[in-house]
Amino acid sequence: MIILGVDPGLTRCGVGVIEAGAHRRLSFIHVDVVRSSPDMSQDLRLLAIYNGLVEKIETYAPDTVSIERVFAQSNRNTVLGTAQAAGLAMLAAAQRNIPVALHTPTEAKLAITGNGHAQKIQIERMVTRILNLNTMPTPADAADALALAICHALRPAGALQGGEREEHLTPAQRQWAEASKKATKRRFNADRGM
Amino acid sequence: MIILGVDPGLTRCGVGVIEAGAHRRLSFIHVDVVRSSPDMSQDLRLLAIYNGLVEKIETYAPDTVSIERVFAQSNRNTVLGTAQAAGLAMLAAAQRNIPVALHTPTEAKLAITGNGHAQKIQIERMVTRILNLNTMPTPADAADALALAICHALRPAGALQGGEREEHLTPAQRQWAEASKKATKRRFNADRGM
Repeated sequence: MIILGVDPGLTRCGVGVIEAGAHRRLSFIHVDVVRSSPDMSQDLRLLAIYNGLVEKIETYAPDTVSIERVFAQSNRNTVLGTAQAAGLAMLAAAQRNIPVALHTPTEAKLAITGNGHAQKIQIERMVTRILNLNTMPTPADAADALALAICHALRPAGALQGGEREEHLTPAQRQWAEASKKATKRRFNADRGM
Repeated sequence: MIILGVDPGLTRCGVGVIEAGAHRRLSFIHVDVVRSSPDMSQDLRLLAIYNGLVEKIETYAPDTVSIERVFAQSNRNTVLGTAQAAGLAMLAAAQRNIPVALHTPTEAKLAITGNGHAQKIQIERMVTRILNLNTMPTPADAADALALAICHALRPAGALQGGEREEHLTPAQRQWAEASKKATKRRFNADRGM
């Protein structure tokens, strides 16, 4: 199963591709950053990001696209561009009938380090170790994209069924399920107003 | 000159099309709302809105697409979906080399009523009068899309040159230029963080 992770952004949009094999064995395929220049008008920036994402999706033909879930509470200065870039990634996947998974940064941190509040450097080190890389993936936003792909591959089985099977979860899986439920609730509240 | 106005939204995205002829004579061409169901997943909702906008743009072949500029300060519950819908409208235009204009709600209100704080009903009445319609356009979000198209057609000449020609502007045009400068400044500040 090929998973393409997207760390959305208008100036730098991280893309990381991994393969998830049997026994949760993960291997590295590709990492890159799709860019648009802040000197361009917003419509041309969005076109550049969209075209870059389409190229990646068509090259690596993922089975799932795993995108960071953006919240309105995020950094005010960048949140709209980030939401728009995430929207373009969703569009590019939906146009090709590729399922989309949204994961919060907390979910990604939990899945990779077991700690939902892990620092950037811890994420980078664990991504490097999990994927058996010799050096840390660069640039840093690319590591975040790989983390989102890994997060989707390693998600606990219970994460898909919501709270039903919580009694069977390990403590880490329970933490995950709680973070996931919280995110779903926030999304539900946000969607109600739309 | 054909202008297609977009009042962005994920549940309801207003589209209004007008023709701007000689002597600022404006005529009505089309008004509609592109919808997506809140029951669908977010990626499929974005795909539905994008496909609807592409159909409108290909049918009416506008010379300019005039879209409401979205601010992070807007309603928290809907701002991300609104920003994503605006992003899709920009993408659909940019893919067809159609210039995009972004106008703030204040600019649209000023252009149509001479009052940047006009109420919705005043906007609807003036849109109806300006376009010589027998009845008010429905639904209301469709009127907003027409207002954005009209706003672009009626923008004062000085609005394009920034502050350079301010001494030649009428009081209404000066108000407009100030609102426009303020919006540009906010956008500049927002872009710096991206």
